[in-house]
Amino acid sequence: MFRPEIKVIDCTVRDGGLMNKWQFDDAFVCKVYNALNEAGVDYMEIGYLSSEHAFSRKEVGPWKFCAEDDIQRITGGQKGKIKLSAMADIGRIDHDDIPLKVDSSLDMIRVACYAHQVDAAIELAHHCMDKGYEATINLMAVSTVKPRELDEALDDLGKSRVPIIYLVDSFGSFYSEDIDLLAKKYLTQLPGKTIGIHAHNNQQLAFANTIAAIIGGINYLDATLYGIGRGAGNCPLELLISFLKNPKFKVRPLIEAIEEQILPWQEKIDWGYFIPYMVSGTMNQHPRAAMAHMESDRKNKITEFYDQMTKPGLE
Amino acid sequence: MFRPEIKVIDCTVRDGGLMNKWQFDDAFVCKVYNALNEAGVDYMEIGYLSSEHAFSRKEVGPWKFCAEDDIQRITGGQKGKIKLSAMADIGRIDHDDIPLKVDSSLDMIRVACYAHQVDAAIELAHHCMDKGYEATINLMAVSTVKPRELDEALDDLGKSRVPIIYLVDSFGSFYSEDIDLLAKKYLTQLPGKTIGIHAHNNQQLAFANTIAAIIGGINYLDATLYGIGRGAGNCPLELLISFLKNPKFKVRPLIEAIEEQILPWQEKIDWGYFIPYMVSGTMNQHPRAAMAHMESDRKNKITEFYDQMTKPGLE
Repeated sequence: MFRPEIKVIDCTVRDGGLMNKWQFDDAFVCKVYNALNEAGVDYMEIGYLSSEHAFSRKEVGPWKFCAEDDIQRITGGQKGKIKLSAMADIGRIDHDDIPLKVDSSLDMIRVACYAHQVDAAIELAHHCMDKGYEATINLMAVSTVKPRELDEALDDLGKSRVPIIYLVDSFGSFYSEDIDLLAKKYLTQLPGKTIGIHAHNNQQLAFANTIAAIIGGINYLDATLYGIGRGAGNCPLELLISFLKNPKFKVRPLIEAIEEQILPWQEKIDWGYFIPYMVSGTMNQHPRAAMAHMESDRKNKITEFYDQMTKPGLE
Repeated sequence: MFRPEIKVIDCTVRDGGLMNKWQFDDAFVCKVYNALNEAGVDYMEIGYLSSEHAFSRKEVGPWKFCAEDDIQRITGGQKGKIKLSAMADIGRIDHDDIPLKVDSSLDMIRVACYAHQVDAAIELAHHCMDKGYEATINLMAVSTVKPRELDEALDDLGKSRVPIIYLVDSFGSFYSEDIDLLAKKYLTQLPGKTIGIHAHNNQQLAFANTIAAIIGGINYLDATLYGIGRGAGNCPLELLISFLKNPKFKVRPLIEAIEEQILPWQEKIDWGYFIPYMVSGTMNQHPRAAMAHMESDRKNKITEFYDQMTKPGLE
């Protein structure tokens, strides 16, 4: 599928960091940065933008903050063709802690929010735009939002100046038919705006749903190397790049980065297709119970997990 | 998706056996059999039907042959609701070695063939039907068949008495758009016949492509527990059963069987999403080179594998 409007956003460090508290060393982040740049990927989301008082540096690595000197250590002060992005969670970053774009290596700030936070998200995104950044709003967990609430949220987003709005399948519970319908809904209710997709892989559908999104007219596509990301992980970037027929993209640098930096992490953390994530996905639940189970010493007791999740009275 | 015509065929032992030469012990096969029966799965493909002189029992386990006394050891002579199927490869089974249906626990024989073997496949399938079995023809590696050859093969199949014809994505190279087109083509060129789908998971699309097939009118659906199967494996049965809304299906027995019998095998053999399988899938190649690489001590040298596969002059 070749469509020049399509932009690919790698979230390896940001979403992968949810699995290891952003404890990636500089060699990891440099390799990912250089590989993405060489592969022609449009954006690298290098982490979260958080205020220093919101988290302790003793507990989380540098990419929970994306301080300018940390970024410069990766880019060497010389930015490649790839643009840099950071994600901001509502309530975790004070507006005053966001530098002006002219003082930052970041190009884009993506504001993540739940439906009830849309007003605060628009305010933050506008603030970022006024400071010189590109901005998006990523409306999370849409699979649990009631139709009326989603209509209201989209209505508010439609009236905002924010040009890019993301459809986020936080729980990995959507089938391609859901994506078809939601792509149509977002495009209709947000005329003139660009729509993005961020999929999770609980049902091995993140890549397929991203393809469905492309066919449905969605142009900003999130993915990560080897699918690394929270729980079941994300759409694998190497699959997406192989699918897209734009000759600017190259898959070999991505495979090299996977070999050098991602495979070793696979020995240490469990993302990908595991039955607990599959169960939470099919049940349209937050993966926190599945993640807790996966981190326990009862990881392979998958029937026990299934029974806990489906116990009468818990639905 | 609830459609009463849909039948689910588990290939855990047959396709999974391609990874371990069918060295599953009776406890494995019994557990799978009982779990599938309890889960409401329609067919269990318990292995291949081969003549004893075609392979040595020293090298391959019993499910390469599906002898009646081996099957009876699993069923205890008392068949459950689930039907049993075996796959026959052209040239590996003498017609005379196939017992009459009245003397066999098998209900269905599925004949696998390449496009140039369709005449021999029809002859074998008719022979099986005349002996009292249900029969299908599974036309493999369609992604490499030229359009004229496919038309001829479908033409021959259309004239046969074989009621069920399978679309097989042997190399895991199809996208859902390919499945849409091929489902339409098979249904149009094979009026009155039932169409089946057998997908491979090289691009994490086996489940998504099976859903696309269902939407396209395909009714016989192959899957395996936890996706076990050759190379990248197959459509995971537990995902498919969770998707299908027919209340006759239950997912819990499948999760129990995965916990007890499939997870231990995951320690010993590598099926699933690995870059070598992804590369052979995106290149529409037989997985044999990827499987050889995965079995070597250079398994994690994925860039080397990519370079070998894409070396100029090899395409």
